[in-house]
Amino acid sequence: MTDPSLHRPLQYNDEQHLVTIIDQTRLPYTLIINELSQLDDFCKAISSMQVRGAPLIGITAAYGLALALRQNPTSLHHAYKALLSTRPTAINLKWALDKVANAVANVAPHEAFELALQEAHRLRQEDIARCSLIGDYGLGIISDIHKSKHDTIHILTHCNAGWLAAIEWGTALAPIYKAHNAGIPVHVWVDETRPRNQGASLTAWELEQAGVDHTIICDNTGGHLMQQGLVDLCLVGSDRTAANGDVCNKIGTYLKALAAEDNNIPFFVALPSSTVDWSVNEGVSEIPIEQRDSAEVLSIRGMTDNAEITDIAINRVSKAANYAFDVTPARLVTGLITECGVFDANPQGLNQLRGKMSD
Amino acid sequence: MTDPSLHRPLQYNDEQHLVTIIDQTRLPYTLIINELSQLDDFCKAISSMQVRGAPLIGITAAYGLALALRQNPTSLHHAYKALLSTRPTAINLKWALDKVANAVANVAPHEAFELALQEAHRLRQEDIARCSLIGDYGLGIISDIHKSKHDTIHILTHCNAGWLAAIEWGTALAPIYKAHNAGIPVHVWVDETRPRNQGASLTAWELEQAGVDHTIICDNTGGHLMQQGLVDLCLVGSDRTAANGDVCNKIGTYLKALAAEDNNIPFFVALPSSTVDWSVNEGVSEIPIEQRDSAEVLSIRGMTDNAEITDIAINRVSKAANYAFDVTPARLVTGLITECGVFDANPQGLNQLRGKMSD
Repeated sequence: MTDPSLHRPLQYNDEQHLVTIIDQTRLPYTLIINELSQLDDFCKAISSMQVRGAPLIGITAAYGLALALRQNPTSLHHAYKALLSTRPTAINLKWALDKVANAVANVAPHEAFELALQEAHRLRQEDIARCSLIGDYGLGIISDIHKSKHDTIHILTHCNAGWLAAIEWGTALAPIYKAHNAGIPVHVWVDETRPRNQGASLTAWELEQAGVDHTIICDNTGGHLMQQGLVDLCLVGSDRTAANGDVCNKIGTYLKALAAEDNNIPFFVALPSSTVDWSVNEGVSEIPIEQRDSAEVLSIRGMTDNAEITDIAINRVSKAANYAFDVTPARLVTGLITECGVFDANPQGLNQLRGKMSD
Repeated sequence: MTDPSLHRPLQYNDEQHLVTIIDQTRLPYTLIINELSQLDDFCKAISSMQVRGAPLIGITAAYGLALALRQNPTSLHHAYKALLSTRPTAINLKWALDKVANAVANVAPHEAFELALQEAHRLRQEDIARCSLIGDYGLGIISDIHKSKHDTIHILTHCNAGWLAAIEWGTALAPIYKAHNAGIPVHVWVDETRPRNQGASLTAWELEQAGVDHTIICDNTGGHLMQQGLVDLCLVGSDRTAANGDVCNKIGTYLKALAAEDNNIPFFVALPSSTVDWSVNEGVSEIPIEQRDSAEVLSIRGMTDNAEITDIAINRVSKAANYAFDVTPARLVTGLITECGVFDANPQGLNQLRGKMSD
């Protein structure tokens, strides 16, 4: 991380053979570090969303599998199944579990834990390196804007694609941290990101920890800010990217991309190349959108005057719909920032990325 | 109203010389009726948004000025200024205050109250008639869509422009009530409308009272719905309309207009012609946008499990910005629905409206 005194969303303790995580359901109010050592601890941490974000879920599960093998070298099948069932739709979860399972597939039981742990460490280091590269490429974009503006660069982001969703740096926030560290003055407009408010809760907290100037805004506000010249750059993450450059990200991303286009503001998407789904040719028509519990819309979490964290209802009579993601058409995306470089959001650009990935 | 048993947002009590209002800050949980008799009561009711919505603000202020003159027949200037300062962006506020002030401009002090009260009554009746006409003209638009669709018409609205914002019918919701009464099946997507959640609190409550099918969505959701063909029509109100057709309305309206344009969905704005500010040639550059207390963004009101209405904080460390309105450029507006008919959102259309107004 930019500051070694900062907490990390996941750390491995070599002496005690346990993992410490930040309980993200308590942010931004309270910093609670939980210790995970038993399989059940890991399952609970993932299913209750104490850890969230595709990379972090995967790596947490990888360590969970390794530590399960430490306690019982023959528990691979059981532990794999238990961890996989915590978030059935998280593709990265299965991907990470498969990596660890493959690493120990044909080894003697007494070697299983060490090899699994090595694989978890490797996945962890790979993620850090990937996010750092995304940060470096994104820094180039911010730096170019700064060269012509010579003033604070105002960046709008949506949801949380920072280090709380990864291990270090994050994706969309990585360029911002790199710019801040490089002495470029940045200010971040943080969409609160209803219904779960990952922006107001997680992104704002991260930026506060890192000393990056930022302002929380309602999700309704970005269009006005862009129209009035108060945004220099939009920078968001991606949950899934189609082969034509369409980007599936947190619900509301599309609206900000429309406003960016209407006001000639660059709209960049930062993503690890692993989130590109090469089997999807056209995101808008092909990517199914998860509908989550309407209770997430009809209630909201916050802190009372008595410092209690609680959920309150915003309406108890009407029904609600809760679409979790939307798809931003590639035509609205200025470029895709990946660990392999910055690419155009179109089939040609994605092909170039694919070429670099196989290098 | 569609149902005479329904409450009204403002009523005058002739015997007690006071105005009763619904405290809209307590909806959708509790129906509380407040009595206003002193100038301070009226100022507080407007500034704290117990009453809100352009028409209702104007008429509340008109009664406030009248009752101030009852208590002190020479207080016109003082009361006018106090009431005008409660909501700087509300053009209708000034319009209504000017009407009352003109009605008593050259009368003897002992006549001031009665004439002012008559003028307030007249404004109230005019508003009911105006909204009903807006409903009739808007019904024509919905009816036309229904003629080709022969199925439920899905209408997206933002904020509250219903009878809670007026006296009866409302503006953007008037066509919906008229369509519902005419037997056209309608379903309304209700933007929750952060930060103050007028959609989830007021529009949803109104529609529930009237038995109109509706679904609350987060403000992030409309773009996805339009992209997926789940919206047939957008219908919003206006706080202030420029002479070129630019529309100033609740923050976030502009984002929905962009999505409507991107998906070829008609985007209509319903407004009383009194909200046109003929002195503003170009809304985007000329209309100043009110910034409200950031506490509205950093907290949210709702109901606890114990049925207590409370505000909870969504972040207690970071700062926030709270722009209350935005301006939707006329090029994104399909048409303006007024009490004089439906007009193009451009200088020619506005000129036609002006011609009708002077008829």
